[in-house]
Amino acid sequence: MEKLQIIPLGGLGEVGKNMTVLEYGRNVLIIDVGIMFPEGDMPGVDYIIPDYDYLRDKGDRIRGIVITHGHEDHIGALPHFLQEFNAPVYATKLTRGLIEVKLRGDLRKQVKLNTMEPGDIIRLGPFTIEPYHVCHSIPDAVGLGITTPVGLIVHTGDFKLDHTPVDGWPTDIAKLAEFSQRGVLALLSDSTNSDTPGITPSERTLTVALNDVFRQSKGRIIVATFASLISRIQQVMDVARSNGRKVAIAGTTMVENVKMARHLGYLDVEDDLLFSLQNINRLPPHQVTIMATGSQGEPRSILGRLATGRHPSLRVGPGDTVVLSSHTIPGNEETVHRLINRLFQKGSNVIYHSVAPIHVSGHASQEEQKMMINILRPKFFVPVHGELRHLKQHAILAQQVGIDRKDIAVVENGYVLRFTQDSMTVGERIPGGYIFVDGTWVGAVSQSIINERESLATAGVCTVSLRYNEKQGKLIGEPHLVTQGMAITETVDTLAPEALKVVRNTVKSIRAGTRIEDVEKAIQKALGSYFYQKARNRPVIIVMALAD
Amino acid sequence: MEKLQIIPLGGLGEVGKNMTVLEYGRNVLIIDVGIMFPEGDMPGVDYIIPDYDYLRDKGDRIRGIVITHGHEDHIGALPHFLQEFNAPVYATKLTRGLIEVKLRGDLRKQVKLNTMEPGDIIRLGPFTIEPYHVCHSIPDAVGLGITTPVGLIVHTGDFKLDHTPVDGWPTDIAKLAEFSQRGVLALLSDSTNSDTPGITPSERTLTVALNDVFRQSKGRIIVATFASLISRIQQVMDVARSNGRKVAIAGTTMVENVKMARHLGYLDVEDDLLFSLQNINRLPPHQVTIMATGSQGEPRSILGRLATGRHPSLRVGPGDTVVLSSHTIPGNEETVHRLINRLFQKGSNVIYHSVAPIHVSGHASQEEQKMMINILRPKFFVPVHGELRHLKQHAILAQQVGIDRKDIAVVENGYVLRFTQDSMTVGERIPGGYIFVDGTWVGAVSQSIINERESLATAGVCTVSLRYNEKQGKLIGEPHLVTQGMAITETVDTLAPEALKVVRNTVKSIRAGTRIEDVEKAIQKALGSYFYQKARNRPVIIVMALAD
Repeated sequence: MEKLQIIPLGGLGEVGKNMTVLEYGRNVLIIDVGIMFPEGDMPGVDYIIPDYDYLRDKGDRIRGIVITHGHEDHIGALPHFLQEFNAPVYATKLTRGLIEVKLRGDLRKQVKLNTMEPGDIIRLGPFTIEPYHVCHSIPDAVGLGITTPVGLIVHTGDFKLDHTPVDGWPTDIAKLAEFSQRGVLALLSDSTNSDTPGITPSERTLTVALNDVFRQSKGRIIVATFASLISRIQQVMDVARSNGRKVAIAGTTMVENVKMARHLGYLDVEDDLLFSLQNINRLPPHQVTIMATGSQGEPRSILGRLATGRHPSLRVGPGDTVVLSSHTIPGNEETVHRLINRLFQKGSNVIYHSVAPIHVSGHASQEEQKMMINILRPKFFVPVHGELRHLKQHAILAQQVGIDRKDIAVVENGYVLRFTQDSMTVGERIPGGYIFVDGTWVGAVSQSIINERESLATAGVCTVSLRYNEKQGKLIGEPHLVTQGMAITETVDTLAPEALKVVRNTVKSIRAGTRIEDVEKAIQKALGSYFYQKARNRPVIIVMALAD
Repeated sequence: MEKLQIIPLGGLGEVGKNMTVLEYGRNVLIIDVGIMFPEGDMPGVDYIIPDYDYLRDKGDRIRGIVITHGHEDHIGALPHFLQEFNAPVYATKLTRGLIEVKLRGDLRKQVKLNTMEPGDIIRLGPFTIEPYHVCHSIPDAVGLGITTPVGLIVHTGDFKLDHTPVDGWPTDIAKLAEFSQRGVLALLSDSTNSDTPGITPSERTLTVALNDVFRQSKGRIIVATFASLISRIQQVMDVARSNGRKVAIAGTTMVENVKMARHLGYLDVEDDLLFSLQNINRLPPHQVTIMATGSQGEPRSILGRLATGRHPSLRVGPGDTVVLSSHTIPGNEETVHRLINRLFQKGSNVIYHSVAPIHVSGHASQEEQKMMINILRPKFFVPVHGELRHLKQHAILAQQVGIDRKDIAVVENGYVLRFTQDSMTVGERIPGGYIFVDGTWVGAVSQSIINERESLATAGVCTVSLRYNEKQGKLIGEPHLVTQGMAITETVDTLAPEALKVVRNTVKSIRAGTRIEDVEKAIQKALGSYFYQKARNRPVIIVMALAD
């Protein structure tokens, strides 16, 4: 009998760019197509998309793409993927709305977007998909039960077991119990918080904390969060209203998302609560709430520009209260702390995670993760969505609730998992890597280019240009030297002339007839030694000799 | 009457490079001269030293430098400072030992190092200094009572109120109470943990957690921590001994520190416990403990090289347990998590902060900070050692225990605080900035050079070299083009020739007689537009035209 293959193409061994492939015979089903935000050592990279090269010769086999929810790390790479692959997309109403905001122009018309609802049964080739509702930090999120010819696979998506969610719709535990009774072959479960003990607090606990902040603040209140955190936006609007404040939204994406979410009925807001950014500043400060993006300290975001005084129309200062209501994405700590310090420097008060409980995670903690495994009692367990340390920790939790170590697959992206009705094997790893998006370059910026950028950043660049006569082995005219990012520009009076002397002496020492490429190499080597001996520095050295 | 000036030159508005100046008439006293580690947006910078330009014309007034303890952020910049200034240094025995390890060659002989002890009374000009013992994550740390002509100033150094410290020597609360009875004019207190509620756990709690790890591990144990965390090293050695293991130290600085600390009596270790790195690998794995640096994920550290398989003699793999026993310096989260993931990839088990309590902070939490203020009841309060958000939060705590807001100075580096017997005023801010150390360059790498490096890192560099005849306004021969860190190197077949065409066309379009500098500028501009239009990229463009 044919085996079911499950291949994680993203999100395993990292946080972000979630994408999972299920393959049975000549049928492919895709779950999520997200992006990842670059880490500190990926300079110039806008974001990273999954490496889906594996699918390039299987385009005609893709029966569908099922999306679990509308966060960037689950839908962000769809515009790239759909340019290349023609497959129907299935998403819940709000998720579909968020995807539509992302798809531009022709693509929006071409793509076959289908709305699904929890409780639907969707048949795509040999796969029968049953989306069920889960709580997360965005409404309308689902997990998936997928009946395949070898058995039932459950993919949790991102989830938490919030019993008092803001939208009043808890995770569908009854459906999970029903899956369990049918018998679950494999569970793929969200590992993001597997090193957090206990239970993740309900989104509703925030209302209390936000209300405290609103009651105590006399001036304007600026709340920063993610543009897609629809339920957080709802909470802030509710708290603003009950405190006699109006709300303005700053930032295109958040404005578009709010409009779309209101239109689809996911935001319950009266018209008279909302003001434009221009109009709200005519109100007295104690009636003003501004919602904005930039909680990660991004310099070009609204909050980032407020902190550096670069926003065209808004200012922040004494009397204002800034609330950072979102978690700090790992790696952004420094930037976020700098943002907080800058806002304090401007005289405003800043409320952030360490001083008030104004954010809760959208992901299950250890006790919820164990609960999920205990409800479903799967034969096989695959921790997904997390760095290797999270996956490892999730595996430990699974063992604690009785899953045998040999029935757990802790794998990173690209490993092929093969399932029969009663077996799981970890197969070969398909080749793959980071696909960097930089400007309009998709994939053109490779790891070796990133390494070049790191070298440039570490010690700058020294470029030398000269005219060289190969026959005579002689320098013609004067060589030029330009540096960027090197301290030599500060000490140009001494170091630059000395470096030029090194260039001249190197050319002098070579024989007539030496080829121009070898002269370039010799100069590069001599300058390298010079800078290292002189200043323990290793700049990138570019030598360009022009034939004379 | 003369006023006392207190000028923080480092550590206020940042974590690191602590340095405070007290000035009375023509007398200067300095407390600590530390370094700071670079943040993510300071590429190529090794470390940062305080900007002590203010003291440059006051060298002959410096009565002494008093050091509170031996961590890098309190002693690290001494080798730089002492090259320029000739002033006696006062430090406790272990701190002095750590300073001696740092001072090389002639400097070590020249510098007047004096050993002080808690309880000593040191008179330096108009200042009478009384060091008192404090607990911190290093033994032999002190705070300072400084009697000045206008009153008693207390500087806590870095401290916590550990009632059961590893060395059995708690913070000298009786001395603090005595200061309080004399009347304290101003308290300068450690703000590092001012956003952490409660009380920092005792160092002793670690012994239990470490012992658990040692009992459960069957293979080798590798413990990573800071080279100067002498009390942590003691704890690991004690736990190793009681679990029948031997210990080897990896890394020059840690080896030197251990040697020095044993010699001075700060480490209590029998000879037969210690093995060399070569010899310990002859023992069976369950008898092996290796202590190393690299808990911050530094790629060139021992642990960093183990994780990437680049250590010359050591390997790490299945069966090994790696313990990261130190906190993650803010900004290093990403690097540390990558280290953990890599060690997991190698098959070893990793014990880190999220999965076991194997580190505690060396700094007081909120309740201890309030206790310190309540014991001393100072007239004026100056939060020190922390980012602005920490200083602000510490000020809120001080108000909670009854210090009036107007008697608290929340200031960043460089502000001149002036004290009389009954007043404190915040004066002007003296100019200052980051002094970057990069290789042997001290201060030569300016913020503008850092900005150049950032630009290079973001989009790479494109250099063009050409021969140009000014009279004819013509290009001679072929222009050369080299890129680094640009995706163009990947798509060289199309983009590079097109870019060269842009260069040729630009020269064609200019008039005969156009000056060579203007040609360079025109090409730079044209290429800039080309790359932006083509790929939304803004590389650094260097054009070097050679006169023909």
